[in-house]
Amino acid sequence: MWNCLIAQSGGPTSVINASLSGVIASAIDSPKIHTVYGAINGIQGVLKHQLINLTSIFANEKGKLETLKTTPAMFLGSCRYKLSNIQEDETEYNLIFDVFARHKIKYFFYIGGNDSMDTVLKLSRYAKTHHKDVQIVGIPKTIDNDLFGTDHTPGFGSAAKFVATTMLEISYDTYIYDLPSVTIVEIMGRNAGWLTASSALARNTYNASPDLIYLPEVPFSTYDFLNDLKCLQETKKNIIVAVSEGIKDKDGHYISATNNPCSDAFGHAKLSGTGKTLEHIVSKSLKCKVRSIELNVLQRSAMHIASLTDIDEACSVGNKAVQYALDGLSGIMVTIIRTNNDPYTIEVDYVPIEKVANKEKNIPKDWINDAHNDVTHDLLDYMSPLIHGEPQIDYKNGLPVYLDIQHLHSDCKS
Amino acid sequence: MWNCLIAQSGGPTSVINASLSGVIASAIDSPKIHTVYGAINGIQGVLKHQLINLTSIFANEKGKLETLKTTPAMFLGSCRYKLSNIQEDETEYNLIFDVFARHKIKYFFYIGGNDSMDTVLKLSRYAKTHHKDVQIVGIPKTIDNDLFGTDHTPGFGSAAKFVATTMLEISYDTYIYDLPSVTIVEIMGRNAGWLTASSALARNTYNASPDLIYLPEVPFSTYDFLNDLKCLQETKKNIIVAVSEGIKDKDGHYISATNNPCSDAFGHAKLSGTGKTLEHIVSKSLKCKVRSIELNVLQRSAMHIASLTDIDEACSVGNKAVQYALDGLSGIMVTIIRTNNDPYTIEVDYVPIEKVANKEKNIPKDWINDAHNDVTHDLLDYMSPLIHGEPQIDYKNGLPVYLDIQHLHSDCKS
Repeated sequence: MWNCLIAQSGGPTSVINASLSGVIASAIDSPKIHTVYGAINGIQGVLKHQLINLTSIFANEKGKLETLKTTPAMFLGSCRYKLSNIQEDETEYNLIFDVFARHKIKYFFYIGGNDSMDTVLKLSRYAKTHHKDVQIVGIPKTIDNDLFGTDHTPGFGSAAKFVATTMLEISYDTYIYDLPSVTIVEIMGRNAGWLTASSALARNTYNASPDLIYLPEVPFSTYDFLNDLKCLQETKKNIIVAVSEGIKDKDGHYISATNNPCSDAFGHAKLSGTGKTLEHIVSKSLKCKVRSIELNVLQRSAMHIASLTDIDEACSVGNKAVQYALDGLSGIMVTIIRTNNDPYTIEVDYVPIEKVANKEKNIPKDWINDAHNDVTHDLLDYMSPLIHGEPQIDYKNGLPVYLDIQHLHSDCKS
Repeated sequence: MWNCLIAQSGGPTSVINASLSGVIASAIDSPKIHTVYGAINGIQGVLKHQLINLTSIFANEKGKLETLKTTPAMFLGSCRYKLSNIQEDETEYNLIFDVFARHKIKYFFYIGGNDSMDTVLKLSRYAKTHHKDVQIVGIPKTIDNDLFGTDHTPGFGSAAKFVATTMLEISYDTYIYDLPSVTIVEIMGRNAGWLTASSALARNTYNASPDLIYLPEVPFSTYDFLNDLKCLQETKKNIIVAVSEGIKDKDGHYISATNNPCSDAFGHAKLSGTGKTLEHIVSKSLKCKVRSIELNVLQRSAMHIASLTDIDEACSVGNKAVQYALDGLSGIMVTIIRTNNDPYTIEVDYVPIEKVANKEKNIPKDWINDAHNDVTHDLLDYMSPLIHGEPQIDYKNGLPVYLDIQHLHSDCKS
């Protein structure tokens, strides 16, 4: 009788716990799996041998498993850790597979983004070359929607719903004063502009905002930006700009206030202040009220306004991952195939991990307008079905009821 | 047969339209009122003679009036406009009362904060001294909860619910990494810390955050702040700080990055960057990940997570305002009296406008702890009932359905 191990990695999304819930539910139901373990803080938790018994926590607690589905961030905690190259050093791999062996782990599920899929790729290759009978399965998540091989990524729909809802509410806030204004809304997205583009879902019969959208996929020109604003000001009083934190100039340099030298384990520069930078530029050039708003981490943690479609898909992807592992598949990432757009239907499938790891899927150029300051209707049609449905969340004393994550900060006061 | 006029002023809240809806509903139902007019952009709209007929918009559209209740920001638009002193110049007043006379306005309702109550005070005094038969009634609103004479202000509960919910979700986002961190959350509040204090409502059996709370009511010391952090770091890994945008040092100077010279019509300095300032200070002094999050305008416009208690009270206050005006009362502001805390019950009442205008109600010192870095349970008990209940909002294509405000930006493209 074998066991399985689950871990979460990378940045949070509102629905990464829905995928975890899906894996746990299917794994507990499977007669082929004895105990479901979870590693605390991703692959680092495996290396540090920090495992918890998820079967004992959830087996007889269906309600808890339901609450986990609508609990933000990561119940198991996360890490940003890059495994060494096998060719150079096998130490970590030997350690990881020792932990697998000691706990009779035959199935390992890693929920994460493209960096985490690098870990899935390396572990599955090691298992193959060293004839280890462990199925390594990747489960996609990211608010950035930049993973290859899947129609979209679990986590994107909920982030897009938060961005679009917030953009609509900001537009109400912006239109009330009888004074010209420019409001710049900075949205997450290092190299892929999907989330920034989702702000366009806020448009309706009476709200044309965001009026301008700038994406990392095309070079950003301050000159063109100011021209776009000046033209628009001739016909509109209150202008709202949606801008990706990751916009770059024609030479590929980030338009970011803090040219922050620090970078994470994967060498990604830390970005922030793109909105503030543009705010200063506009203030110096145009006579009107200018402000910038950074949506910040709420984009990935605002479970209270998550997409039910996204939650359900994230859960299904988790369920299917268990089935694929039990079928003996390894070195794969579970994917979502859109079988129809209207009415929207999907199927869950998988791709070899080589096709996904360390790659980024950007917005196709033909989904960006020629002026490079807006998106096309095709892109809106693609995104629209992903934000449908409201989450079923219980409220107590006016606040959403989420699952206790005390185990992640047992050092916490109170 | 007489008419009434309604206007909205100052910054938005999620429920100021609920008060508007309450006034419209009661006014339309009253046999003593023929037509309900609205002024666009507050008292400036009266001066510019920009009135719209609300009876024709809402009389036979009960559904529309319901949607107005849960529509963010201000349906009639706003202004920040200070009327001249009557002693110095009566021109504006003569103009305003000419507009009243021309439209047979016998009842004028002004929904706003303490600055707007200054307008109510001046207009009611002018009416009295010039024997104008116009009842001037103020209806309170502000997310700052800083109005005298009322237990709390409509708008505060919804902003507090957004802040507390967001704080809880940020804590989930913060706890996932196995690395020490300090997260600084900047919350609105120029001189009153009520909204910043409401972040403490996010605490529960497993979440102790916010771990530190700094309010404008007590002087802020950078030295003490860094000490507070260092002490806390000995027992806790991830620290979350809630800080008011308006904290000042012992000399009364704002701890704000942008010592912005511009100020609004009432001479209030524009604040922003308090969180960023503290982020830089902490980064230089402590070895850990530091970030700041500014909740920004979402605090006053996030209707999707508003408090039902707040919405209902805002509506009742609007209803009662009409009754008071019809009873011949003038120069008053409608108030909320808390008759019991558990179970929470209120009554709607009123106070003479002199007791409210141009005053600010701050948090009592005995509701702030001795270390000046947290709030007491008494304050939590006071705030807790105000955030109960979820708004009844329709969603279409994944987005909340709000009322069209096209009339506020008819110059809008599309």
